[in-house]
Amino acid sequence: MRDPNKPCVEVCITPTNYPLYREYNEIVVVIDVLRATSAICTAFDNGVERLIPVAELDEARGYMGKPNHIVAAERNGEIVEGFDQGNSPYGFMGPGMAGKTVVLSTTNGTKTIKAAHDADTVLVGSLLNLTALSEWLIDQQKNVLLLCSGWKDKLNLEDTICAGAFAYNLLQTGRFQSVEDSTIMSKYLFLSAKDNYFGFLRSSSHRRRLQKLNLNEDIKYCLTPDQSRAIPMMKDGVLVKMDVRDSVKEA
Amino acid sequence: MRDPNKPCVEVCITPTNYPLYREYNEIVVVIDVLRATSAICTAFDNGVERLIPVAELDEARGYMGKPNHIVAAERNGEIVEGFDQGNSPYGFMGPGMAGKTVVLSTTNGTKTIKAAHDADTVLVGSLLNLTALSEWLIDQQKNVLLLCSGWKDKLNLEDTICAGAFAYNLLQTGRFQSVEDSTIMSKYLFLSAKDNYFGFLRSSSHRRRLQKLNLNEDIKYCLTPDQSRAIPMMKDGVLVKMDVRDSVKEA
Repeated sequence: MRDPNKPCVEVCITPTNYPLYREYNEIVVVIDVLRATSAICTAFDNGVERLIPVAELDEARGYMGKPNHIVAAERNGEIVEGFDQGNSPYGFMGPGMAGKTVVLSTTNGTKTIKAAHDADTVLVGSLLNLTALSEWLIDQQKNVLLLCSGWKDKLNLEDTICAGAFAYNLLQTGRFQSVEDSTIMSKYLFLSAKDNYFGFLRSSSHRRRLQKLNLNEDIKYCLTPDQSRAIPMMKDGVLVKMDVRDSVKEA
Repeated sequence: MRDPNKPCVEVCITPTNYPLYREYNEIVVVIDVLRATSAICTAFDNGVERLIPVAELDEARGYMGKPNHIVAAERNGEIVEGFDQGNSPYGFMGPGMAGKTVVLSTTNGTKTIKAAHDADTVLVGSLLNLTALSEWLIDQQKNVLLLCSGWKDKLNLEDTICAGAFAYNLLQTGRFQSVEDSTIMSKYLFLSAKDNYFGFLRSSSHRRRLQKLNLNEDIKYCLTPDQSRAIPMMKDGVLVKMDVRDSVKEA
C-alpha cells in the first residue's frame, strides 16, 4: 500500500499521541493556532531574533530582568501574573520587537514544541504561514508530521483543520502520500472549514473560551491565512527564523 | 456555556484518551465498526445468550472445549490459529448460534470494552444498531460517552463516523448538548460520509487492511446501518442482550 518512493505527510492530532506517529518525524511542524504558533510567526515577522519556548513557568521566570528579553506566559487563555505578556499575536507587533529575545511559555503550544525535541527538524506552523511553509515542505521531499497541540491533551478543531490544510497542500502536488486515518480526517475537516474558518469554529471549545475573554480580534487574526512568510525553526533548543538559504534546494 | 439541565453526548476517539473524557461516562457506548461490535450485535440477533469479551488470547484459550461455548479470536484482521473463528459477523449467523455463549478476543474492540469497566453502564454500538440504540439512549437522558476503539491506539475513520452518527441522532432531539471538539469533529465526519459510507471509507487504513484479506463482504455488511435491534449491554463482566424492560422509561 505504501509507496516506498514517496514521503509521507501525516497528522498527529494531540501531543500525547506523538509516540505513535514518530516514524514520520523527519520534519515535525508544531501547530497551535489559538494562539502560540500564530504569535511566534508574528514575533519573527516583527523582527524578533530568537524565541525560547519554555514548558514550565518557573523556568520562564528565570529569564525575567535579562536585558533585551521579553518574557511571556499564558495559562488558560490569560497572561500569567507578573509576566510581560501572554500569547496574543498583538503583543508581538510593533517596532519594539526588533532584535529581541522572546521567552514564551503557554498552556499547550510550547509544551508540544518541547515534546518533539527528538525530531530531526522542528518547525512552527499556523494558518498565518500556511503557504510559505507548505512551499518549503514540498521542496524538501521528506516525511512530514503535523503535530497538533490541542487543548490539555485533547484534540481541538482549529489545530486539526490547520494540519489538514498543510496535508492538503502537500498531497495536492502528488509528490507526497498519506496512510493514516488521522490525516484523511484532518483533510476532510479542512475542506469543510476552509471557506469560513471563523464560522466553522463558532462552536469550538477554545473559540468559546477565548470569546469569554474578549479575544475575538485575536481569533480573527489567527484564522486569516498567509499573513506571514516566516518559517520559525528550532536550532539548539531555540526558535529562529529560517535563513532563506535553508530553503534553497540542493542542486 | 454548559447547560446544567441537559445531559452531554461526547465522543472519545481512542481508548487511550478515555481517562480525559471519564466525566461523561454514565453510559459508555463502545464502538468497533470493523468488526468486533458489528459482530457482537449480529451474534445477539442470531440467538447468542452471553458474550464474554476477553482482552488476552490466553484467557480466551481457557474457555476452549467448554460445552455450549464458541471461542473466537482475531488479531490484525485474521482468525487466530486454533480458535473457532475470528470477528467476522458472518461467523455469528445461522441456527447454530441459539443459546450459545461466545468468548471473543479482538485486536481492539474487546480491549476497549474492558477499558470502560468503571462506567455505570457499558453498551455496544455499531452502524448495525444505530437507530435502535440511539432511541434507547435518547430515552435515558443521561450523559453518554461514545468510545471509539480505533486501531492500536490510533483513531480510525469508521469508528469516528459511527460515533458521530450517534452524537448527531442525540443532538438532533435538542435534549442533549455537546461541549467537546472531538464531538463536533465526529459529527462533521458523519455528515460528510453518511450518503456513501463505503465510498467515503475507500481510503481508510483499516478498509485497506481488510480488503487485502478479501473481506469486502464483511465491510459492506458492517457499513449498512440498522440491520439490528439488539442492544448488547455489560452485566457482571458479560455482555447480554438488553431485556426490553430495561428500555421502558420509568413513569
